[in-house]
Amino acid sequence: MAKKHRAPKKNLYAVIIAGGKGTRFWPLSREAFPKQFLKLIGERTLLQETIQRLKGEVSPSNTLIVTTKDQKDIVDWQLKELLGDVNCVVEPEGKNTAPAIALAAFKLFKKRQDALMLVLPSDHFVSDRDLFNQTLHKAIPFAEKGNIVTFGIKPARPETGYGYIKTGRRLSKDTFKVSAFVEKPDAKTAKAYIKEGSYYWNSGIFLFRAKDMLDEIKKYMPDMYNTFTSIVKALNTKKEDEALKSIYRNLRDESIDYGIMEKSKKIVMTVADFPWSDLGSWSSLDEVMDKDEDGNVLIGNVVGIDCKDSIIFANKRLVAAIGLKNMVVVDTADATLITPKDKVQQVKQLVSKLKEEGKEEYLAPKIEERPWGYFSVLEKGPSHQIKHIYLKPKARLSLQMHNHRSEHWIVVSGTAKVQRGEEVFFVHTNESTFIPPTVKHRLENPGIIPLRIVEIQSGEYLGEDDIIRFDDVYGRRTE
Amino acid sequence: MAKKHRAPKKNLYAVIIAGGKGTRFWPLSREAFPKQFLKLIGERTLLQETIQRLKGEVSPSNTLIVTTKDQKDIVDWQLKELLGDVNCVVEPEGKNTAPAIALAAFKLFKKRQDALMLVLPSDHFVSDRDLFNQTLHKAIPFAEKGNIVTFGIKPARPETGYGYIKTGRRLSKDTFKVSAFVEKPDAKTAKAYIKEGSYYWNSGIFLFRAKDMLDEIKKYMPDMYNTFTSIVKALNTKKEDEALKSIYRNLRDESIDYGIMEKSKKIVMTVADFPWSDLGSWSSLDEVMDKDEDGNVLIGNVVGIDCKDSIIFANKRLVAAIGLKNMVVVDTADATLITPKDKVQQVKQLVSKLKEEGKEEYLAPKIEERPWGYFSVLEKGPSHQIKHIYLKPKARLSLQMHNHRSEHWIVVSGTAKVQRGEEVFFVHTNESTFIPPTVKHRLENPGIIPLRIVEIQSGEYLGEDDIIRFDDVYGRRTE
Repeated sequence: MAKKHRAPKKNLYAVIIAGGKGTRFWPLSREAFPKQFLKLIGERTLLQETIQRLKGEVSPSNTLIVTTKDQKDIVDWQLKELLGDVNCVVEPEGKNTAPAIALAAFKLFKKRQDALMLVLPSDHFVSDRDLFNQTLHKAIPFAEKGNIVTFGIKPARPETGYGYIKTGRRLSKDTFKVSAFVEKPDAKTAKAYIKEGSYYWNSGIFLFRAKDMLDEIKKYMPDMYNTFTSIVKALNTKKEDEALKSIYRNLRDESIDYGIMEKSKKIVMTVADFPWSDLGSWSSLDEVMDKDEDGNVLIGNVVGIDCKDSIIFANKRLVAAIGLKNMVVVDTADATLITPKDKVQQVKQLVSKLKEEGKEEYLAPKIEERPWGYFSVLEKGPSHQIKHIYLKPKARLSLQMHNHRSEHWIVVSGTAKVQRGEEVFFVHTNESTFIPPTVKHRLENPGIIPLRIVEIQSGEYLGEDDIIRFDDVYGRRTE
Repeated sequence: MAKKHRAPKKNLYAVIIAGGKGTRFWPLSREAFPKQFLKLIGERTLLQETIQRLKGEVSPSNTLIVTTKDQKDIVDWQLKELLGDVNCVVEPEGKNTAPAIALAAFKLFKKRQDALMLVLPSDHFVSDRDLFNQTLHKAIPFAEKGNIVTFGIKPARPETGYGYIKTGRRLSKDTFKVSAFVEKPDAKTAKAYIKEGSYYWNSGIFLFRAKDMLDEIKKYMPDMYNTFTSIVKALNTKKEDEALKSIYRNLRDESIDYGIMEKSKKIVMTVADFPWSDLGSWSSLDEVMDKDEDGNVLIGNVVGIDCKDSIIFANKRLVAAIGLKNMVVVDTADATLITPKDKVQQVKQLVSKLKEEGKEEYLAPKIEERPWGYFSVLEKGPSHQIKHIYLKPKARLSLQMHNHRSEHWIVVSGTAKVQRGEEVFFVHTNESTFIPPTVKHRLENPGIIPLRIVEIQSGEYLGEDDIIRFDDVYGRRTE
């Protein structure tokens, strides 16, 4: 079937909510590296997939990412290739979906009064791009008529982990008035919903005109409306960051579902036929991933004997599993999680326990991705630290200096261009160099193949904050 | 109760069989590092415990370790502190217990015709030293009268994993004639044995005069007897190694149980009251280790929620376990094993599978202990390798050279004395040095605190066999 080639609608904006924290996919996700940034399924991260899905429907310049300060760098780095310039609006702190959507609505309405907003979570699974776009096009006429359209998923099973939408009067083949938003039901109620037939899963995907959402916010969340109105002049200007900082502290943490969707009379629902999951836990991968003949999902360096219906996520280290049934095993460089599928919800409790026991290091990512490549910490001692550093071709670190540590660099593959004080020289594969404390230096990959180096830091203080940046091609400041 | 201080009997020799291979405790035990070398329980390795148990009963100079070529270095290093000089006899290859015991008997008889041999596996668990020594002293008079005494363990449960000894006529309070050695029974038979009351577990600990064992070998294993007789002149001389090499190839692989114990008419059994386990698998730790109130054995960096009756062996990496029941988890630097307790026997199958799949690297130990300290491989790449090297105070590596790799040394703590070509210099903490290929070098810890260095090897070939040793304080040759 030949696809129609349409130009993206000029007034259609995608608003991607990418501020979510969460450690439900711990130890793969970490507090500073939540699941939208993970390649859980396939070659792209969930955030990248969300953007990729919109290609041809929403132009990159019409794509707005709502994120938080601590995630901005990661968003930039993950989307640069897909979007070119990445339009981010940075919330000073996450306050749930209502402020994030309100902020986007104010910004887009200010830009273009007929702006249509497609709001998308950045960390959900949607497998069929064509079906997704078909649903979008079914929804557009309803949004253009002033409705707030939600995308409802036909329930595949009596799931107790999702909210449901109860539909009312049919407006078209696939679109209904919404009569109620319903909280996560118990098992019995969920079964009854399925039998009854008019209930759908709430996907968290919405389409509406910015204008209409602003009207509803004014009506149902007048405090928040007024707060944003007070800074509307600064939006889309250089003063935006500062203005947001001044109001965010006082905003209430609230979801759009509770704040608007459950109250507004303008809500309609379009049935979404695409396979979908909110990926709420490790066991949710069961619904979306291909399995072997024994029902296992085995990723990475896994050797299994007699395993059934288990999910094993490994990487380079070996995970050897014998006779596992309905288990989840997630192995990362510094931590391994092992639990039966029906206990994965307790990962939250586990993360709390790690905090209580002073093991916060396991809430930070072991592999740190950076605009120029990535590094991983191989070993940490009281006065030394060994890192494996990967620089993309042509990538260049900032000119920098450390007060307390020396750095030894051994080039493992590729060629490094090193500035050390006033000298500039090349270090080739299998050669090494040494940067004493308080000497300005810069590392660069001048080549067209990746540069891999091993860095040994030694000194009395090894914190990432012992860094003075003199310039930075990635626009980061020393803080 | 005051202990009697006896001088060790001059004619009593301990013969420790420390040649066993095996990977039943994989991934903690490896092919080149079997379980006798592991600290499974407490501060000492099983081999060290076996020696420690004999203190005061057998003098160090009367202790003979029967081992194989590839394990000699580890035996030396593990026992040096306990024994001073370590008397090893090195079998050219392991041929099961009959040749090992025959060899020891020939050697000791040649030394002293009234030699009494206490034969001990090096990888079993015995918890009560006093009870062990009491049993030994009950057994000695029977051995001195020409009996071959086995130590029998009163069965604690109808175990199907052990061989049994059926006792006959009572000779003293704790010693019986043996009427039969019985193979591992099925569950029903094992229950019947317990009910019947005259069956004991075969501990593999024996006491006899070398002379009597040689008589029995002559009678029941005449081929092996004649083979050893042909080289008896070389035993206890410098020619021993060579002589053994000439005969071992032709020796049959046979157990002492099958070769002698099941046939000899001289066998008696002394009841051993000490807690004992052959530590046949990970689940056997259940019998010998202290558990928490939920029945768990949790070692190392483990955070558990709602776990019951599980064994979790971790080290530095974090193992996070939720809701495990009757599971075994063993985490090491490069591999993690996860299996229910009732499947641990399949570890053998798993090890075979690793070989089939070309993952032999997981059968070698990740931490390599050496006479001078130890090293661990932090990372292995196609053309580089990073090691963490620990040198004991005053330890010194051999003067050596590599043809294909360069080595970068960064001192993390302590001070290194480095010989590089004709130069000798010191490298202090946080300093580094570089050894190009084909340059003679030596690393030494001249200090009184440990020396830790990070070594990055780089080059086209990184095999451990690219080493030319010019001298070696630990007596190792370049091979």
